[in-house]
Amino acid sequence: MAMAELAAQPRNEKAVKAAIGALAAKFGNRLVTSQAVREQHGNTLTWIENQPPDAVVFPQTAEDVQDAVRICVQHRVPVIPYGTGTSLEGHINAPQGGVTLDFRDMNRVLAVHAEDLDCVVEPGVTRKQLNEYLRDQGLFFPIDPGADASIGGMTATRASGTNAVRYGTMKDNVLALKVVLASGELISTARRAKKSSAGYDLTRLFVGSEGTLGVITEITVKLHGIPEAISGGICPFPSVEAACNATIATIQSGIPVARIELFDELQVKACNAYSKLTLPESPLLFLEFHGTEAGVAEQSARFGEIAADLGGGPFTWTTNTEERNRLWQARHDAYWAVIGLRPGAKAFATDVCVPLSRLAECVTETQRDIAEHNMLAPIVGHVGDGNFHTSVLLDMNDPAEVATAKAFSERLVERALAMEGTCTGEHGVGQGKMKYLQAEHGEALAAMRAIKHALDPQDLMNPGKIVAF
Amino acid sequence: MAMAELAAQPRNEKAVKAAIGALAAKFGNRLVTSQAVREQHGNTLTWIENQPPDAVVFPQTAEDVQDAVRICVQHRVPVIPYGTGTSLEGHINAPQGGVTLDFRDMNRVLAVHAEDLDCVVEPGVTRKQLNEYLRDQGLFFPIDPGADASIGGMTATRASGTNAVRYGTMKDNVLALKVVLASGELISTARRAKKSSAGYDLTRLFVGSEGTLGVITEITVKLHGIPEAISGGICPFPSVEAACNATIATIQSGIPVARIELFDELQVKACNAYSKLTLPESPLLFLEFHGTEAGVAEQSARFGEIAADLGGGPFTWTTNTEERNRLWQARHDAYWAVIGLRPGAKAFATDVCVPLSRLAECVTETQRDIAEHNMLAPIVGHVGDGNFHTSVLLDMNDPAEVATAKAFSERLVERALAMEGTCTGEHGVGQGKMKYLQAEHGEALAAMRAIKHALDPQDLMNPGKIVAF
Repeated sequence: MAMAELAAQPRNEKAVKAAIGALAAKFGNRLVTSQAVREQHGNTLTWIENQPPDAVVFPQTAEDVQDAVRICVQHRVPVIPYGTGTSLEGHINAPQGGVTLDFRDMNRVLAVHAEDLDCVVEPGVTRKQLNEYLRDQGLFFPIDPGADASIGGMTATRASGTNAVRYGTMKDNVLALKVVLASGELISTARRAKKSSAGYDLTRLFVGSEGTLGVITEITVKLHGIPEAISGGICPFPSVEAACNATIATIQSGIPVARIELFDELQVKACNAYSKLTLPESPLLFLEFHGTEAGVAEQSARFGEIAADLGGGPFTWTTNTEERNRLWQARHDAYWAVIGLRPGAKAFATDVCVPLSRLAECVTETQRDIAEHNMLAPIVGHVGDGNFHTSVLLDMNDPAEVATAKAFSERLVERALAMEGTCTGEHGVGQGKMKYLQAEHGEALAAMRAIKHALDPQDLMNPGKIVAF
Repeated sequence: MAMAELAAQPRNEKAVKAAIGALAAKFGNRLVTSQAVREQHGNTLTWIENQPPDAVVFPQTAEDVQDAVRICVQHRVPVIPYGTGTSLEGHINAPQGGVTLDFRDMNRVLAVHAEDLDCVVEPGVTRKQLNEYLRDQGLFFPIDPGADASIGGMTATRASGTNAVRYGTMKDNVLALKVVLASGELISTARRAKKSSAGYDLTRLFVGSEGTLGVITEITVKLHGIPEAISGGICPFPSVEAACNATIATIQSGIPVARIELFDELQVKACNAYSKLTLPESPLLFLEFHGTEAGVAEQSARFGEIAADLGGGPFTWTTNTEERNRLWQARHDAYWAVIGLRPGAKAFATDVCVPLSRLAECVTETQRDIAEHNMLAPIVGHVGDGNFHTSVLLDMNDPAEVATAKAFSERLVERALAMEGTCTGEHGVGQGKMKYLQAEHGEALAAMRAIKHALDPQDLMNPGKIVAF
């Protein structure tokens, strides 16, 4: 699907030129219009076509962002925020052109409040950078999407990852934001107090709004103490269904599992080949427990019993950091392992999430669908949350393959929606998932559109994403 | 302060009469206009004056709510949702008159999904009713404001309570809502999947919106397994500051404390007198730990060490249910114990919340303020969250006392705001806290107002609360 169909507003070349002139006067060589840089700032990681902006600005302060937004809005030119460019649904494309704000230079940790377990960062700080910064203080930030994404981008897309089953998603870990609105106004969405009932929850409204309601310039996130002890391991199961049932039983029994990740058999084979491992080639759960020495031992033992009751096991676990890291490195390399199954192919990622009770059924039906259409599509899942991804391996130059993959993705979303699930658990809407929102939200979509109109009446904040005017 | 100053819109008696006529035709004897019933539905629990509605409707279905809202909006008459009437800031007052929707008859638990750890309820279900209903299944709903409030009201005010330090507030425990908008449209804010990135977080926008953006007709909440073991106890400290520092150290060390509540010395004395206890008359922490037998023993022991290091203790704890319940009953009876300090007086409750690192300072300064003004005002605190309440005991017929208490409350809010805190941690804004929102939110208040305008353009959804037009 060409995304040009979303570019509803006519482009005014004169206005774009005038805006770039005003930005150049203000930003000097921090405004770039070279084709190479513009194309780097269009979408690159996925099958969605590249739609570069007209210019890229590198702000250094919130005031820079205010100035850039004011200039753009004055000339009716779109503004697109950019973190590390690792989003998967065309969030950073510029379907109507416009000006990208790249937060590369706003990458400072502004404050760490160890006693309050929070810190204040600029949007360009990446999750790995933040955790490096925090390590000496015995603190960490748990949200871990696959990529080393920026905290700003993770906030904008309501990201999560492997730790979400215990630590929640970005919606649970952002305390407060500073945001530049389309008016150029800089607002603070909340105070640093851990809870508040003082009016509408603007923080949660901006988390997941993908730059369509304003540009995030500062994020206060919650931190956690690095656990005293961590145990981790893998557990084979005779079927995906058995693995899902063990997951349900584990969550229900109140074991505070930190990570519980599913690999299907094909994904295990891919990892064995890529990471030179000898994992048992059956559906696997990767687990991790956080707590005290005694606590993680108890949790591990209890999970082992649950797995055995449901026909799985043996659950082999360790508190040895090197062994654990080797396993989790394989988990993090899952994407590259998948590509290794078909060198040269592109991976088309799906991202549905369903209630836990429907997970086994949804994964099983999806595997059947994959087999019926002769696709190569391993499955990994953040199964504690009912969220799983398939990576369909594609030759993008073969229209038949592309069509098959797209039709598969549509069926998968329909399947998830029919099970009270969502079209996207953590990747966001961007351009790619817009077409599913009516089916998912019904009349609520009109309420979202009303909010967008209220805060961005000219549709200049990352237009053509989430809701169309 | 007379709240009449907020009643900005002129009342149209003819329109009110016409709306009541149309509602009577639809609802028969489920529409009530007697003065006694109307006054019961104005605010009763606090110092804020009673402002009764013109009529009360008792809906039985979401369609009833849609009909009532449509009739009211057609006649430009305000709609005020009502749960159990236990809110503290005039949320349920009708400053411009209008029609109260009392959810007494919408009190069914519609579904329990044990495998997904969630359930679906109507707004009139109370928290105790829900927990009675769930007990046989080994599940519970953790949010516990003092009163046996309705889940609808708790959602609308973003309530929390003693368990929030571990289980979060209503914002963390509501998965999805059904809401009737001013348009009469019934929307679903989200699916039942545990996480989603599919557009704006309408769920969290309506949680805490106090009926000002629409009327909640159904709530899907998260549930938790009843812990295998619970231990609880009390720990005396030489000062409020020492107790606060022990709280910080406990949270920082990652002990997953379920409850950590502060009583100041005056509150302890009140409880000893009222509940016939012999608690040590010094600042106390009440604690509770949830987990396995071994887990709670370990947590209790570790807390005891922390307390001793900070000059507190001895920490006496028990897993005996009766002994624990006796302690927590005293905690829940704190309000009545306070009244017992001065029979006939009314208690004026405050509700600030500050970052944990500022808590000791904020509580200590507040105690000094209380002493300087010769007030009788015990302190209890959900200190794991940095939230505490003072109950100022007042003779409402003594204007000087009332003025002193109001001035104290203003100083307390200013003190909390200066420490990056909030004017209300869990009670909500209602009428009583509106005047503080500009100071707390600054420019963000205009964004809240824009959202209110977008979803309720005629200002008929619980007008005169949170944001004024």
